[in-house]
Amino acid sequence: MNELPKIGCYKFLVEPFHCDFSKRLFLGHLGNHLLNAADFHSNDRGYGMNYLHTVNKTWVLSRLTIEMSEYPLAYETINIETWLKSVMRYFTGRNFKITNEQGNTLGYGKSVWAMIDVETRQPVNLLDVCNGIISTFIDKEKECNIDKLSRVQVSETASLVRSIDTHYSDVDMNGHINSIKYIEHVLDLWSVDWYQQHTIKRIDVAYVAESHQGDQLNFYLEPFTSAQESEHYSVRITKVNSHEAETEVCRCAVYFLK
Amino acid sequence: MNELPKIGCYKFLVEPFHCDFSKRLFLGHLGNHLLNAADFHSNDRGYGMNYLHTVNKTWVLSRLTIEMSEYPLAYETINIETWLKSVMRYFTGRNFKITNEQGNTLGYGKSVWAMIDVETRQPVNLLDVCNGIISTFIDKEKECNIDKLSRVQVSETASLVRSIDTHYSDVDMNGHINSIKYIEHVLDLWSVDWYQQHTIKRIDVAYVAESHQGDQLNFYLEPFTSAQESEHYSVRITKVNSHEAETEVCRCAVYFLK
Repeated sequence: MNELPKIGCYKFLVEPFHCDFSKRLFLGHLGNHLLNAADFHSNDRGYGMNYLHTVNKTWVLSRLTIEMSEYPLAYETINIETWLKSVMRYFTGRNFKITNEQGNTLGYGKSVWAMIDVETRQPVNLLDVCNGIISTFIDKEKECNIDKLSRVQVSETASLVRSIDTHYSDVDMNGHINSIKYIEHVLDLWSVDWYQQHTIKRIDVAYVAESHQGDQLNFYLEPFTSAQESEHYSVRITKVNSHEAETEVCRCAVYFLK
Repeated sequence: MNELPKIGCYKFLVEPFHCDFSKRLFLGHLGNHLLNAADFHSNDRGYGMNYLHTVNKTWVLSRLTIEMSEYPLAYETINIETWLKSVMRYFTGRNFKITNEQGNTLGYGKSVWAMIDVETRQPVNLLDVCNGIISTFIDKEKECNIDKLSRVQVSETASLVRSIDTHYSDVDMNGHINSIKYIEHVLDLWSVDWYQQHTIKRIDVAYVAESHQGDQLNFYLEPFTSAQESEHYSVRITKVNSHEAETEVCRCAVYFLK
């Protein structure tokens, strides 16, 4: 019987070369730390990638939301707590809480994951894996004090603002474009000048399909709402390659504070 | 008086999302770990960025060579030892040794650094900083078992093979394009298919000038020598922007084993 607590806590150093011009952690690198925390937490409890690969299954990230009230500075350490909020047949909800060394809350994250069979690419019933051990780790009480995952809508009138090629460095161990790379590419739609005036309050990402090295990625931008102190944009990413029609791979909503 | 040993040793986890399709650490992320080790080592000993920023000075990376006999796998930890090999007036040589958990040597690194005044951009005499404390940390004995830094030559006939724009994510805390990003962009000149047949034995990088977000980077490739079991390429990177002529920013030599 696995005696680990439901909530895992992992410490990360804010590395200097993972910080932007303002000396604060890039949101993409923070996202990578969240994925690490999720990975360590599930591996430690027996239903992580390390076990799943032995039975030809894998976790697939479906949704990710990060909302920050403050970004940590270079050389600080942060703690990321993560826990399972819910388990349904085909999806599990995983939450995150990010705190600094003094215990102050910097932000939260929410995510949704599916499990698939790597051969058939079909979803797997989560309760069939490891005798349903995953459901013994659900914590419904732990607070995750941000709005729920949003649907991320991008209308057909969004404008094509950038096309990029995908390369060797973009590809992860599963052979797909790394989930965090989409976030970096989306945030790169705005310049350093923009980030001198705006901070990212929140990002919602819906992962729709996988892309591979060689695919061209198209970015369609839609200004959503603009208010005195905030601006909200949506972005659709599609892939284009020689053997299929243009296909949506990802949708993002980005909320900036001025 | 600073009582720390001349050689610093820093442990890094090979994070799963820092690994390529073969589940081995990307050379770019390894390079980032080397820069971290250099940064920690010099900060701990009083002549790092943390002190230098208080006196308007900074370290500038001039050369970096990494040569690997084996790349660590995801979830392994590696130790990076680093030490100063030499200090001259305007340059210091810093070496690296990379070992795995079992103590086996995976590879080595060599680097050359200058110190500049951040206002005037002029070089600073290293022996004038902190009463020359830096020269008390030189270790000439510690083995760094690879060929010396090479000059990296790229002829004028090298072919323009890619042009890319630079974005927010490329910029480091100094406001320049991150040194490691050049390595990633260079290695991205080859495809995943190529890396399924070749491993990177060695890379030599000469950093010539700084580039900034908004600059376009041009990559000029020259096949140098090709042998039964190895291939050697050189790459020149230039920057293009609206206010200066095309300028060389970086030269790389990449040695592949088949």
